[in-house]
Amino acid sequence: MGIVLQGGTIVTAGDVFRADLRIEGEKVSSLGLGLTRTDDTVYGVDGCYLFPGGVDPHTHFDLPAGEIFTSDDFFTGTRAALLGGTTTVLDFATQFHGESLAQALRNWQAKARGKAFTDYGFHMAVTDWSESVAEEMDLLAREDGITSFKFYMAYKNTLQVDDTVLLQAFRKTKENGSLLCLHCENGDLVFDLTREALRRGERSPRFHPLTRPVAAEKEAVSRAIALAEAVGAPLYIVHVSTRDALAEIVKAKLRGLKVYAETCPQYLLLDDSRYGAEGFEGAKYVISPPLRPAGHQEALWQGLEAKVIDTLATDHCAFNFRGQKELGREDFSRIPNGMPGVETRLGLLYTYGVKSGRMGLSDFAALTAANPAKLFGLYPRKGTLAVGSDADVVVWNPEGSTALSAGTLHQQVDYSPFEGFKIEGKAEYVFLRGRLVVQEGRLLDVRPSGGYVFRSRRSEVGTGGNKRA
Amino acid sequence: MGIVLQGGTIVTAGDVFRADLRIEGEKVSSLGLGLTRTDDTVYGVDGCYLFPGGVDPHTHFDLPAGEIFTSDDFFTGTRAALLGGTTTVLDFATQFHGESLAQALRNWQAKARGKAFTDYGFHMAVTDWSESVAEEMDLLAREDGITSFKFYMAYKNTLQVDDTVLLQAFRKTKENGSLLCLHCENGDLVFDLTREALRRGERSPRFHPLTRPVAAEKEAVSRAIALAEAVGAPLYIVHVSTRDALAEIVKAKLRGLKVYAETCPQYLLLDDSRYGAEGFEGAKYVISPPLRPAGHQEALWQGLEAKVIDTLATDHCAFNFRGQKELGREDFSRIPNGMPGVETRLGLLYTYGVKSGRMGLSDFAALTAANPAKLFGLYPRKGTLAVGSDADVVVWNPEGSTALSAGTLHQQVDYSPFEGFKIEGKAEYVFLRGRLVVQEGRLLDVRPSGGYVFRSRRSEVGTGGNKRA
Amino acid sequence: MGIVLQGGTIVTAGDVFRADLRIEGEKVSSLGLGLTRTDDTVYGVDGCYLFPGGVDPHTHFDLPAGEIFTSDDFFTGTRAALLGGTTTVLDFATQFHGESLAQALRNWQAKARGKAFTDYGFHMAVTDWSESVAEEMDLLAREDGITSFKFYMAYKNTLQVDDTVLLQAFRKTKENGSLLCLHCENGDLVFDLTREALRRGERSPRFHPLTRPVAAEKEAVSRAIALAEAVGAPLYIVHVSTRDALAEIVKAKLRGLKVYAETCPQYLLLDDSRYGAEGFEGAKYVISPPLRPAGHQEALWQGLEAKVIDTLATDHCAFNFRGQKELGREDFSRIPNGMPGVETRLGLLYTYGVKSGRMGLSDFAALTAANPAKLFGLYPRKGTLAVGSDADVVVWNPEGSTALSAGTLHQQVDYSPFEGFKIEGKAEYVFLRGRLVVQEGRLLDVRPSGGYVFRSRRSEVGTGGNKRA
Amino acid sequence: MGIVLQGGTIVTAGDVFRADLRIEGEKVSSLGLGLTRTDDTVYGVDGCYLFPGGVDPHTHFDLPAGEIFTSDDFFTGTRAALLGGTTTVLDFATQFHGESLAQALRNWQAKARGKAFTDYGFHMAVTDWSESVAEEMDLLAREDGITSFKFYMAYKNTLQVDDTVLLQAFRKTKENGSLLCLHCENGDLVFDLTREALRRGERSPRFHPLTRPVAAEKEAVSRAIALAEAVGAPLYIVHVSTRDALAEIVKAKLRGLKVYAETCPQYLLLDDSRYGAEGFEGAKYVISPPLRPAGHQEALWQGLEAKVIDTLATDHCAFNFRGQKELGREDFSRIPNGMPGVETRLGLLYTYGVKSGRMGLSDFAALTAANPAKLFGLYPRKGTLAVGSDADVVVWNPEGSTALSAGTLHQQVDYSPFEGFKIEGKAEYVFLRGRLVVQEGRLLDVRPSGGYVFRSRRSEVGTGGNKRA
Repeated sequence: MGIVLQGGTIVTAGDVFRADLRIEGEKVSSLGLGLTRTDDTVYGVDGCYLFPGGVDPHTHFDLPAGEIFTSDDFFTGTRAALLGGTTTVLDFATQFHGESLAQALRNWQAKARGKAFTDYGFHMAVTDWSESVAEEMDLLAREDGITSFKFYMAYKNTLQVDDTVLLQAFRKTKENGSLLCLHCENGDLVFDLTREALRRGERSPRFHPLTRPVAAEKEAVSRAIALAEAVGAPLYIVHVSTRDALAEIVKAKLRGLKVYAETCPQYLLLDDSRYGAEGFEGAKYVISPPLRPAGHQEALWQGLEAKVIDTLATDHCAFNFRGQKELGREDFSRIPNGMPGVETRLGLLYTYGVKSGRMGLSDFAALTAANPAKLFGLYPRKGTLAVGSDADVVVWNPEGSTALSAGTLHQQVDYSPFEGFKIEGKAEYVFLRGRLVVQEGRLLDVRPSGGYVFRSRRSEVGTGGNKRA
Repeated sequence: MGIVLQGGTIVTAGDVFRADLRIEGEKVSSLGLGLTRTDDTVYGVDGCYLFPGGVDPHTHFDLPAGEIFTSDDFFTGTRAALLGGTTTVLDFATQFHGESLAQALRNWQAKARGKAFTDYGFHMAVTDWSESVAEEMDLLAREDGITSFKFYMAYKNTLQVDDTVLLQAFRKTKENGSLLCLHCENGDLVFDLTREALRRGERSPRFHPLTRPVAAEKEAVSRAIALAEAVGAPLYIVHVSTRDALAEIVKAKLRGLKVYAETCPQYLLLDDSRYGAEGFEGAKYVISPPLRPAGHQEALWQGLEAKVIDTLATDHCAFNFRGQKELGREDFSRIPNGMPGVETRLGLLYTYGVKSGRMGLSDFAALTAANPAKLFGLYPRKGTLAVGSDADVVVWNPEGSTALSAGTLHQQVDYSPFEGFKIEGKAEYVFLRGRLVVQEGRLLDVRPSGGYVFRSRRSEVGTGGNKRA
Repeated sequence: MGIVLQGGTIVTAGDVFRADLRIEGEKVSSLGLGLTRTDDTVYGVDGCYLFPGGVDPHTHFDLPAGEIFTSDDFFTGTRAALLGGTTTVLDFATQFHGESLAQALRNWQAKARGKAFTDYGFHMAVTDWSESVAEEMDLLAREDGITSFKFYMAYKNTLQVDDTVLLQAFRKTKENGSLLCLHCENGDLVFDLTREALRRGERSPRFHPLTRPVAAEKEAVSRAIALAEAVGAPLYIVHVSTRDALAEIVKAKLRGLKVYAETCPQYLLLDDSRYGAEGFEGAKYVISPPLRPAGHQEALWQGLEAKVIDTLATDHCAFNFRGQKELGREDFSRIPNGMPGVETRLGLLYTYGVKSGRMGLSDFAALTAANPAKLFGLYPRKGTLAVGSDADVVVWNPEGSTALSAGTLHQQVDYSPFEGFKIEGKAEYVFLRGRLVVQEGRLLDVRPSGGYVFRSRRSEVGTGGNKRA
Repeated sequence: MGIVLQGGTIVTAGDVFRADLRIEGEKVSSLGLGLTRTDDTVYGVDGCYLFPGGVDPHTHFDLPAGEIFTSDDFFTGTRAALLGGTTTVLDFATQFHGESLAQALRNWQAKARGKAFTDYGFHMAVTDWSESVAEEMDLLAREDGITSFKFYMAYKNTLQVDDTVLLQAFRKTKENGSLLCLHCENGDLVFDLTREALRRGERSPRFHPLTRPVAAEKEAVSRAIALAEAVGAPLYIVHVSTRDALAEIVKAKLRGLKVYAETCPQYLLLDDSRYGAEGFEGAKYVISPPLRPAGHQEALWQGLEAKVIDTLATDHCAFNFRGQKELGREDFSRIPNGMPGVETRLGLLYTYGVKSGRMGLSDFAALTAANPAKLFGLYPRKGTLAVGSDADVVVWNPEGSTALSAGTLHQQVDYSPFEGFKIEGKAEYVFLRGRLVVQEGRLLDVRPSGGYVFRSRRSEVGTGGNKRA
């Protein structure tokens, strides 16, 4: 009484091969030919690719930003994710000033519980450091499956921590086997440039990227690596956007450091010419780090090809143009930072990475699923289509193409930064732990069935897995 | 009526998971649990790893060197390979001056036919360039499955070609979808330094490395990349031995070039202090490029970890110390260059890479099998344990350890450069295309059963495979 | 009624030539042959070099450090300087918390007035930033001839400023044509490593360098350059001690930034093996940044030769071993940081730079006199032997050699870090503004005759001078 | 009975100062104030700069190129040089195949004798290597004052030598204290790209730069440095044109190698957009290496500012557009390579370097005179305005500006690559060895008075001079 996906091409981070995939209960039970038993449900998937369900390691659902919240909460955000082929998200639970990490975790558990269409876990963003917070990190890693902690080198006076905190945090993550994630931009530099810009009366969105220059990211990445190296702790750098930062990361990898890099589709496919759009349109692209000058995109693609960028995330952090982005009409520094993307990640990488000839299908699976799963303690449960893994399967039909449009996407936000981008193929079926949840692009059940995933620590991963994603 | 390997842990370049593996005929037919059918032969492999049969992309069997031949021919060489867990070798058929490529291929087919215990293919080493040789390259790629061609930047006056030849060869390989392999040392510099050394009366083996300095390799790699880039052709650099060469390769990868790097166990585990050995002992380590100063080894390990070195080969090129190496007793430049290694590659990488904690099992499988198979047109037939692949399986029992010794190894050569090195685990069983050929470290059949493998061109590999190994 | 130095070889940053030098009043009046007039005083200086009086741009005289003061005040410090061939020093007036810059300047003027044997000027070290301090910077540059300002990225909780302050300071110096000097070590990293070391009970001097690693300097230099570049301001980096920092500086110069580097004899001639000395001896070498591992020294020499290091200073900051350094007997972090050197700079560079064949005499004059004078607004008054310049002349007799020893040096401190170093030649005569003040190594007048030098701003230096030192 | 230049500002590589300059016979006798004696001739040069006469280390006068000769011979070429402020040129005597060096030298002596308006010396270009040629190098260095030898890595089948020759040549120059000059472009790559271009029917001048890509220069520079380093010999790289080559040179300098770089005004002021000109106009800019894409120019300027480019030469190699360049109308590879420039070097650097604020006057003097003089054994006779130096003086009047035009220049060639470029100031007077030869831009004597200069070897320059230019 299993399910057999028959006739497709199975794609993992290591292999691409024709075989049937059989599911029993929530798990993949076998791969091969002639696996069907009498009471099995069979889906013919001839001509389709079977991808491991996408793992998006960087989302911000239901995040407060001043007076407002991101337009996607866990319900709408994970629903869109699922329709786009992502079956697990890692969202950033965030400690606000004065809170304990326990409180922050409770807040985020409440936001997600019963409302997620995908499986989900949390990184914990730490913004108010103290001895007791440091101790809580151990507890979360051990008891709650929170095995990654994020810090910010940017956002002076709110989220930013100084190097002394970072060093202590690196020591802590090294000790408890968790992974430190870092937003790398020099917040003092951004603060200074923003103040100067406003002083000069520069208020429209096109000044946003000028206050967050390439050097602000490069400097912070370089410093973060120096600190991680001093302590001997691993480091995961979120949303790498520049050739310069990447060069620092590669030098670190080549001297044996465990430094990992994430990028996002927006940094691969869009450049800073978007800020020059008419009127207030540029506000749609106000994200941090910003879109970069032409040239950086190609360098990042080459980083993916050379396997020195490890994961593709979305940094999905949606704000409506109307009513939300517009809060910064008179002052770009008040535009809420962020853009949507959780739904379009797989389609964009498949189209502009695989179909364009830049990478192979296995590279696609590594970047969208296997690598984030391995780095964040989800593997081998998530991230692959191996025997014993969760049967999170995306049946990708490579036929046909569509143009992206906010009107037809399911993200709850009134625009898409990728409006008009052509996508080749689509997620025909999506299985979440063995259950068919998406068919022909439509959700089969309007009730969320995603669950919380308790994640392993790096120290628990033996030689059985990859050391490096 | 298949074979089931039951209870092991399957290791591929992408995954590590507990599952049974079922073989039908020459192929892997399924992976999963409960796959056994009534008439199957079952091998219990509890506690063992199932590795894809090793692919060694760099051997020299039965190679003439002046008056002598390498001590291992295809019979003894592939027998040793098999016992060490390697099921496919790519040997260098070599065109000598005045020969056509067709003649060279006939020579090598004759050397190997009926004598190989592993499957085998050939790269073609081109040393005497002409228009007609260029045309033969197309023919070999199309008709004979010879889809890689090697050239030498070293060995002035014998094998060395100049940049003009290289440029034409790059154009040719680009055109016909094959891959150009290159020995990168500046032969003029080596020639000059050797002449100067001999002029000064420097005749013992310890002068060998001084005539082939780090800069000779770095310079040649840098030049080779410039030429490949000018033409737009891919490039595979054999036996990278220095941090400096690796740095050039990484820069090339980061600007999007298809430049691939191979290294060998000797460059990871031995350093140039070996040349200081008593008497003529240093001759055992006379290879080109030579063993390098301490420090380069660590840089290469880091290159493996950072995935910027693509393959681990052996450059197996065995000469007996007695009678062969001794030809250079009075003049290091007359010592035949080369050392054995085809039997010890897997054990060394497993022990010093995986067990030491430097890399994961999947990295091991990528370096020893999947990557060479993908780069050289053998995948998905070779290099993995996927459904439909050749059932070349190494059952690796991680228990126990042994010390390497020429006395117990099967290579036909009177020394091992790794004498005394400890190896963790061993190849318990080896299957070649579904047939059990090695059991408990012993050959089951003294008759060779390896066959020639016709290889694909890069142009024939669709998005179904990895673009990059 | 002038003075003629007859028969010597004149050395400037540009030239080396045989000529007489004639002095009238305080100035050089002519260079040539046959310049003597009837009433001139003639000094025969056959076989000697005439160097421009040394300009030491980095001293700390009479500096409070906790409860104590540096052992050399302006009287003893400048006396030693003069005897060593240095005729101008730039000392660091230092603002302490709560003080205005005006107050700090008054303090330092009081320390120096009437007590200096050399001419002197001040950099102003800013440690307590505010809007009013920023305004004072303009005033000092304009009214007091203080045209350089120093900041510290190290010494957390005392002298250290954050990036926001640095950015404002760069804007200010850019605006008022002054030059920002920076101590580049990441103070947070040093603080953290020191705390951890002490926590582990590591208390002897040999732990000092481990708490101030190469990376702490490299990181700070890299960050400082990024900030300077963002603002478009020039930057002078004091006491560069590592290959790594130098590499960052060179990259900056090559992209057109006005970034200047200073090093000191101790970083060229001593390495971190000194910290391994018996007992508490290592305390003599407790300086910040610390002496570096072998290898960095050679890289700095090569930086001098390649003209990418601009000046040679001393960072003279003397503490007696007995009674002062000993304050840290139980805790290396309490050892007062610093070492003497103002007297030995010229002799060391002449011996280990010029005589060893590493550099020419003009390079010597550039590093010890012309470059610091040009960078800090003293040129053409100081730093050369051109017509119209102050007649600050060192007559260097290259004959003979002596071994350095605290016992014979005039610095008021009970040890020399260069004890036993051989010096070739000596300062036979020294003239300060046309007045003979040192003869045969002895002071001619025990009363100080040095005066305060009002320095120009960079903006005042036209194309008449070098843009770059 | 001397000459006094009164009231000017003297400019040397080290200093800029107001003083009178007195000449006796052929030499500078003194610098100072009030130097005039009763019978002196006095020139009032108030408001003018006194520059050391320019030393142009790279010209090709009367050079055969196939059937034709460069349009400027020594008579017209040095006349133009002198009018532009250059008083010494180093031309390339060239050995043609089959000739001895002695023969080549005789040829060039014959071309120059009695026809030069400036002083002149020769580098010897070696193109046909043999043991006896190697021995001649010693002779020329010792007996003829030819202390620099040029080789070509480009021009396959004519001038190009291989690495084996270069290595021997480096050994020879190291041994005899001379300096090896090198044209660095990979001639095989240029040959191949040219052949391919012509095969595709690409025949107009705009294809010229595509056959000599940036990589061809970078590769050759990198290789040349590796060879020089292997031998331990100094290396002077002529006409550096790219950021990439410069980066290699800087790396070499930073590891202590004696590697020197020359560039030319055309590489600073013109870019490859010139090749896109209408019709055959692009032929005017057909030089090797070619003009480079925008961006490289700025990098070279920064190299000058950072003092990592040592000299500014012209590579003056003039061919008339009509009748000469036109030989390649149907095939760009037949266009004679080269452009004029010997007359405009000082004016261009003064205007676009000094007046633009990029560099100081001393930098100007270093690049145009002192550095070439020091590197090529002419110093202190040439290259400065020190006591005892040859009185080669350019009185530069900074007032006024003119636009360059072939019509008003004195070079014997029918175009100027700098047509229309504005020049600030002009050479008002020029003195050659104490004799006024140019006044108000006009030649005072139509008879040449330049003489041959016997140059020193590097080994003869003691610590009296700069080790490094």
